Parts: sequence; structure tokens; C-alpha cells
Amino acid sequence: MYDVQKIRADFPILSRTVNDKPLVYLDNGASAQKPKVVIDAINQAYAHEYANVHRGLHYLSNLATDKYEAVRGKVASFLGAKSEDEIIFNSGTTEGINMVAYGWAAPRMEAGDEIILSVMEHHANIVPWHFLRERQGVKLVWVDVDTNGDLDPQKVIDAITPRTKLIAVTHMSNVLGTVVDVKTICDGAHARGVPVLVDGSQAAVHMPVNVADLGCDFYPVTGHKLYGPSGSGAIYVKSERMAEMQPFIGGGDMIRDVHKDEVIYNDAPMKFEAGTPGIVQMIGMGVALDYMTGIGMDNIAAHERTLRDYARSRLDGLNWLNVQGQSAGKGAIFSFTLDGAAHAHDISTVLDKKGVAVRAGQHCAQPLMEHLGLTATCRASFAMYNTQAEVDALVDALELCHELFA
Amino acid sequence: MYDVQKIRADFPILSRTVNDKPLVYLDNGASAQKPKVVIDAINQAYAHEYANVHRGLHYLSNLATDKYEAVRGKVASFLGAKSEDEIIFNSGTTEGINMVAYGWAAPRMEAGDEIILSVMEHHANIVPWHFLRERQGVKLVWVDVDTNGDLDPQKVIDAITPRTKLIAVTHMSNVLGTVVDVKTICDGAHARGVPVLVDGSQAAVHMPVNVADLGCDFYPVTGHKLYGPSGSGAIYVKSERMAEMQPFIGGGDMIRDVHKDEVIYNDAPMKFEAGTPGIVQMIGMGVALDYMTGIGMDNIAAHERTLRDYARSRLDGLNWLNVQGQSAGKGAIFSFTLDGAAHAHDISTVLDKKGVAVRAGQHCAQPLMEHLGLTATCRASFAMYNTQAEVDALVDALELCHELFA
Repeated sequence: MYDVQKIRADFPILSRTVNDKPLVYLDNGASAQKPKVVIDAINQAYAHEYANVHRGLHYLSNLATDKYEAVRGKVASFLGAKSEDEIIFNSGTTEGINMVAYGWAAPRMEAGDEIILSVMEHHANIVPWHFLRERQGVKLVWVDVDTNGDLDPQKVIDAITPRTKLIAVTHMSNVLGTVVDVKTICDGAHARGVPVLVDGSQAAVHMPVNVADLGCDFYPVTGHKLYGPSGSGAIYVKSERMAEMQPFIGGGDMIRDVHKDEVIYNDAPMKFEAGTPGIVQMIGMGVALDYMTGIGMDNIAAHERTLRDYARSRLDGLNWLNVQGQSAGKGAIFSFTLDGAAHAHDISTVLDKKGVAVRAGQHCAQPLMEHLGLTATCRASFAMYNTQAEVDALVDALELCHELFA
Repeated sequence: MYDVQKIRADFPILSRTVNDKPLVYLDNGASAQKPKVVIDAINQAYAHEYANVHRGLHYLSNLATDKYEAVRGKVASFLGAKSEDEIIFNSGTTEGINMVAYGWAAPRMEAGDEIILSVMEHHANIVPWHFLRERQGVKLVWVDVDTNGDLDPQKVIDAITPRTKLIAVTHMSNVLGTVVDVKTICDGAHARGVPVLVDGSQAAVHMPVNVADLGCDFYPVTGHKLYGPSGSGAIYVKSERMAEMQPFIGGGDMIRDVHKDEVIYNDAPMKFEAGTPGIVQMIGMGVALDYMTGIGMDNIAAHERTLRDYARSRLDGLNWLNVQGQSAGKGAIFSFTLDGAAHAHDISTVLDKKGVAVRAGQHCAQPLMEHLGLTATCRASFAMYNTQAEVDALVDALELCHELFA
């Protein structure tokens, strides 16, 4: 039995008000709130158990190292990786994808080589590839979505040429909520010898993920979207790809020996983790993953499907509101515009007066916005702690917008 | 009046025991403990004020953005930068130096170009330059320290050739405590048109820093050493150098426009900050800087000089103990070995039994260890909250080591 009120009680911020209204937090696509167990773990780490990791032999350093390193297995288990050695810690998906771009892609790509992207990628999964275009003459090949916002996996596979060196595609659109059939893409790509990076920033928050089953080569996730601390994250890298990857960030910990004229790198995954890491953030992310798996990813996904269906039916009833993305199996993410002149920013400001937090803008997905012919949308993105009553609060506030701007 | 007991009371962890002994935390060179105001700020941010920054128009996002962006001015002021636009946020010195290596150095260096380093650099200020050696044929030119551990600035200046493109030197050695006369190095280097990166990881914790006065081009610092959260940091980049630098990490926030075939970058410093940043860590780092400046960097430096002098006199009395680094103006960092067969790791283990936390190993400074002819040392590194009684506790524990291993 999924007790959403019990879950809500675990998140201190959800009991606060905004503009004298109960907070209705629907900006989860940008970042999720944190349960008390995560906040308490951070507090405990700093107030009682803090030291640097991997570097000391004293009690506090060993304690912090044990807690920090235990997270690697949690991430591996959460993502279904075969080994925790396939998990590299970082500050989030942006760093993860940049590591792949600098450490794996850049050294093996030449002018004219191609990277296939979907048009609904987040800028984090676009700009690192633009770097390769600007600096090395790599060609970006774009695959559009259909009118429902669905991405046909066969269109991605058909875009492969002998010059294709990588496919980089999201698992779940942060704007449309579309869930991409990345397993089919991985199967087709691998049959042609092309590795696949799947951006898991959104998907891993909302549904069970098993990278071994998907067959992808790279799967970055972001801790702050996974109910964990800001500045935490990790990336799954298939061991064969890890072996091909050169170091990205250089510094302490990622080396075995440093001499004046030579450097010998550490074994993977340490080879890809330089300097003092986000110790307490990663410990907090581990607690967040435990919290999610304690509730159960299937249960979270089922709750959010119910929310999605309820929100869809309520929003469908507003004939002056245009929802972007009608994919049948989409996540509980609704980007929309209103008929008339109301700008997304004005709408979000009115919603905020009612305590409803949504995001307005291009959602770090400008190629998708151009594809949709829009400059901005409002986005309501749901999470495990949201309720049908909050959908109603959103609709009430939207009706006020409609009255104000009609 | 510097009230060290009052300061100690601000740090919750300092009242705990380790192995049934009061914690004597002398591993500050690896990472510093956090005052309650920092821990409380983190708690407040997550429990009551959390949202993503720069991305929303709702109340919580604006609140988080205001608190986050206010830190930029605090860092500028703390480091004596002329403008907060010369401050780039990051996860610490390692990321900061890598950004300079990838974004500034790599595009402007050719095979045979030279980077001058001192032999006492931390791996974070070595490995990124080894990358350029391995990948682009850049030559690393090393300048030794004298028998006291002092670095003659003229030797650094004399090492400049027409091929010298950068000098990268620490402000304070994390092993010897040596404070480098970086102002003289900057003056001499700039007269020859060579920019200077000064690694401020240690120095900024222990003495007032003014980058405008030093004249350096790059000055990275690390939040977790500055009594702030893990995963926080910043780098000062002189505006002329910032203008020369290409983006390092690609993603959201650092762009103005992203199209399928073009990307237009944001203005600096945003151009160099991609994706969701370490929001709460940076807010916490701002509180830590406020805490330090509230006490006064001159006062902290004076207290630590007293500690240094007391520790020096006590350790000098142990004729079976060899301190590395005898620079007159050194910081309160003592690396040492014991006569006989006792390994640094064994010593640190014995000290730990007495509650004394020190670090053992090569301290991410292997070229220096080779220069010293050692494989490892123990290091006791002091901070604003340490006391003379803790020096005595260290000496008592060392005498026990001497008895055990002699």
C-alpha cells in the first residue's frame, strides 16, 4: 500500500507554505526535494563523522571512507550494473557526459565522424558533443520525434552510417515525459558496432532501471534529482568502454604513481575520480537510493502513473491549454502553453502566488523547443510525493491564469 | 582576543572522542572540520529552502538563487578579487586547475612549450599538466626547493625560457608548510609575459590572500579545506585570462543558445559553470567564509603562528624525530619521520589509538617525496581550532611511538 501522506511526512520542506499557500512543488524535473533521512545523514556526517576519504589511516577517515565507498555498490544495484567497478562517482549527469565526451569520444573521433542525437536531448547531452563538432569537426546527426513526442527507435537505428561512432539519447524527456525504447536502440546499434549513451537523469528517478538489460554503454544519473544532495552523481560505464577511456580530470586519488616525467594511473573506476570527492553528498545520495528502493521503484512508478493519468484527464479538460507530448507511456511531466498572449513566465508567476512551483522556459532543451515551434513552456513535473490534490491545485491555479490572461 | 575554546565550541565534531580519547584532529591539510553555522545552513537549505537555481521563477528557486549567487561576492572579497565576475564556482581546486589546463592551456600550447612547476606541487597541480605532456608534447620544467624547503622565487624566474607558457606553483606546501613568495614570481613572470597559476588550496585557509596584490592569473581554492562543505570550491581567474579561455564543461546554464548546428555561450563567469551546480555546498561555503572573516584571517594566522612556534619547539626536543621543512615562515604543517624502522602508517595507527588524527603517506606530493628521499611521512596539520594542549597530546603520543618502535 503506497501511503503518499506518510512519504510526504518524510520531506520537511513539503509542510512549508509559499506566499501563504501550502507549497505544491511541481518542479521535480529541475530538482527533487530531500527526505529527512538524507538531511540527517548529511548532518551526522559533518557533525560527528567527517574526514577526508582514501587518505588517512585514522578512525574518522576510515569511517568516512567506508560510508562513502559503500555507496558504489548501492548505485550499481540501483542501476542493475553487473559490478560496482562499472560505477564512477561524479557531481552529476553533466560531468558524467563530459567525461565520456573528453575521455572516450574525443580521442577516437575524427572530422566527419558522426554522433546521433534525438531532438529532445537536454543541453547536457548536446553541448559536450557540440564541443567535438567545434573542435574536431564531428558531425551531429539529429533524429526528430513524431507529433506525439515519441521517438521511433528504428529511425535512430536507420540513421547509423559507417561514420557513426556514438548514439547519445535520453531515456526520458525532461520536457515531454516521453520514455524512449532505448533497449531496441541499443540492440540495433550494437549489431552495427555503435556504442550508446543513455541519459538517465530523469528516467532513473521515476522507473526501475537495469543497465545490463538495456545493454547501454554509458548511463549517467544525477543525485539531486534522485532525492539526494546537490553535487552528487554517478555514471555507469560498461567495462569494455571503461577500458577504452582515457582519464578526464587529473589529480590525487586517480593515480598510482606520479613522477616528474611520468604518471601511472590508478585502476578503474578510481582512474576517473580525481581529488577529494563530494564525500558527504555521495553518502547522502546513497541514503536517498536506499530510501527509494525501500519504497520500491515499481511502487513509485505505479504511483506516478496514476498521477500522470489523473493529471492528463484534468488537463485535457482545459480546452485553452495545450500540452506538449502525448506519448501513451510518458512519465508524469507536463509541458504546456495557454491559448492567448500569456507568456510561460507570467503563468509561472501566477501559479507561484498560489504556492504552485513549476518551471518556465526552454528547459535546457532548445532544439526540442525549436522543433515544437515554441520559445518557452511551463512545466509541471511530478515526483513520488505528489498527490492528486496537488494536480487539482495546479488546475485551479491554471484556471485563474486563464481568467487573468484570456 | 582570540578565544580558541569559543571557536572549538562552534565545531560539533571536536567534542567527540575517538578510541575513548578526546579527538585531536590534526588532519586539516586533508580536510577541515565544519562549524555549526555551516551545518545549520546546509540543513536549512535542504529542509526549508531548496530548489534548483537559475532555472525557475518560483519563490524557492529565486530564494536559492539569491543565496547561491551571493556567495560569488563573498569569494571575491575573501580573495581580494576586483570583481565577482572573476570568480568561477566549481567543486574544488582539482576541478579548477583542470579547467585551466583544458580551457586555457591546452588550446594555446604546442609540443615543446614549457610549464614550470615547483617540486613541492600537489598532484592536483601536476597531473593536469602531465596530461598536456602526454597528449601534446608539452615539457614540464621542475624547480627544486632548498634544504629548508624554501623555494627561491628567482630560481623560478630564471627557469623561464621563450617556450615557457605558464608557471604553476603552490602558495603553501601541503607537506612542508612552506609559504612561497608568489608575488615576486608573478612580477618576474609577467615582466616576461608568462601567466602564473597559484594553487591556493592550503594558503587561503591559513592567511589573508589578496589576488590583486599577488598579481596572479589563476588562484583556485577548495571549500572543504576552508571549513566548508565537501564538493565546494572556486577559482579566481584574471579577466584577461578569462577572456582567453574556452569552455571546459558543457551543458545547461553555460550557454545562451543551443541549436542543432550552433551553440552560443553565455557570458563569463557563467560560461564556465555548466549544469546544476553544487547549490547547497556553495551556500555552505559562503557561510564558512563569513565565519572565517568574522574571526579575521589575520587573527587566524596569528593563532596558527603561535601554534607553529610551540609545535616546532616541542618537536625539536624529540631528537629521534625528523621534521621535513624548516622554512622560517612556514605554516603550521609538520611532516615527519621517526628514527628506526617505524613506518608512517604504523605511527599514525598508534597516534589514532590516542585519539590523534594525522595523515600518513605521500600526501599527493610524490615528486617532493622523491626529492626528500622518502616514501612516506606522517603529517600533523593545524587549523584555527587547534590548541597547544593538542600539540602536547601529539608529542605524548609520539613518545609512545618512540618507545614502541625504538
